[in-house]
Amino acid sequence: MEKEKAVVVFSGGQDSTTCLFWALERYDVVEAITFDYGQRHWQELEVAANIAKELGVNHRILDLNLLNQLAPNALTRNDVAIEHKEGQLPSTFVDGRNHLFLSFVAVIAKQLDARNIITGVCETDFSGYPDCRDIFIKSLNVTLNLSMDYNFVIHTPLMWINKAETWALADELGAFDFIREKTLTCYNGIIGNGCGECPACKLRLAGMDQFLLEKGAKI
Amino acid sequence: MEKEKAVVVFSGGQDSTTCLFWALERYDVVEAITFDYGQRHWQELEVAANIAKELGVNHRILDLNLLNQLAPNALTRNDVAIEHKEGQLPSTFVDGRNHLFLSFVAVIAKQLDARNIITGVCETDFSGYPDCRDIFIKSLNVTLNLSMDYNFVIHTPLMWINKAETWALADELGAFDFIREKTLTCYNGIIGNGCGECPACKLRLAGMDQFLLEKGAKI
Repeated sequence: MEKEKAVVVFSGGQDSTTCLFWALERYDVVEAITFDYGQRHWQELEVAANIAKELGVNHRILDLNLLNQLAPNALTRNDVAIEHKEGQLPSTFVDGRNHLFLSFVAVIAKQLDARNIITGVCETDFSGYPDCRDIFIKSLNVTLNLSMDYNFVIHTPLMWINKAETWALADELGAFDFIREKTLTCYNGIIGNGCGECPACKLRLAGMDQFLLEKGAKI
Repeated sequence: MEKEKAVVVFSGGQDSTTCLFWALERYDVVEAITFDYGQRHWQELEVAANIAKELGVNHRILDLNLLNQLAPNALTRNDVAIEHKEGQLPSTFVDGRNHLFLSFVAVIAKQLDARNIITGVCETDFSGYPDCRDIFIKSLNVTLNLSMDYNFVIHTPLMWINKAETWALADELGAFDFIREKTLTCYNGIIGNGCGECPACKLRLAGMDQFLLEKGAKI
């Protein structure tokens, strides 16, 4: 039987690492792809690489710093050199970023003959980005299949669950401790439980507390 | 009344230049976007820039050399530096290239508050690329609208016409001589009527001959 392959959009954070474990349980060959687009913390790339290495997953970092070309300052002034300061996000968030990420991942996935694409986007903790919505993912799935005449299946294991349920999923996958200790979600670049103060840490920790409480109640 | 804006995917060839004239007739503000992805002929970028300048169209060249990162040699061997020889195409055509081009154009179009996107893709002289098909374009239109919560309208004036009819359209737009003399379609990098020998020249010239014959017959 032919091996079933999957590609995971992977940042090294809680959500995409949970997706990576989810994929490893289901597929014979799993590849992780991280985008380098001038993240706030260069550690993100290192964390992602380390996790992939530890899990024995083939890992690819794709340089998407060209997203900075799309920032309004570069748009409105053609003659201005595009500056990108080390360790800072581009001045403006780029619309359609998930659309672009998933599109590049699909191009790579087809070349690997991997039908399955896994992404940790989630509509429950909806951040306001329209390209996190389920309806967008489904539409993109059709568009990508038409664009390359290929049968991609985009999986979104976290789409309808909250942070506590994401921790529960990690636990089911035997990855709770790994994800708690080795992933990076914190805006201040502190691995594991993080700084505890930034919005990302608060969301992550509140979810973990809720999960542990419910798990304790079940025992 | 608010000005209606449009963005044209523009290579400086016959088809996209016809689309540029088409857009200039219809919209108040027109912007042309050219992708630099290591074209066979660097002249393409210069030709595109010159045409845009002559027509007074704001022109932007977007560096998409990262497409070379997606070539299989770089894919299958992570440790190999990605080489790209000056003036050559990447070794392998990238699946979904139109999908990626149009997606980037849409990101820019939204920032310019331009609803209209014009592309010269054509199903009549179907080259075998699935992302030239009308069904793909329509699906992408929906996906892009969902991804950015915006009402893009993708226009494909050449979708169902052949090369002779494209010349006829150029003529209707008063652009026949301009397009014959100033655009670059030739694989050998010769502007205007080209080398006359390569497949692109043969297609272009056969279409022009047919158009001129039919036009002569009408007079």
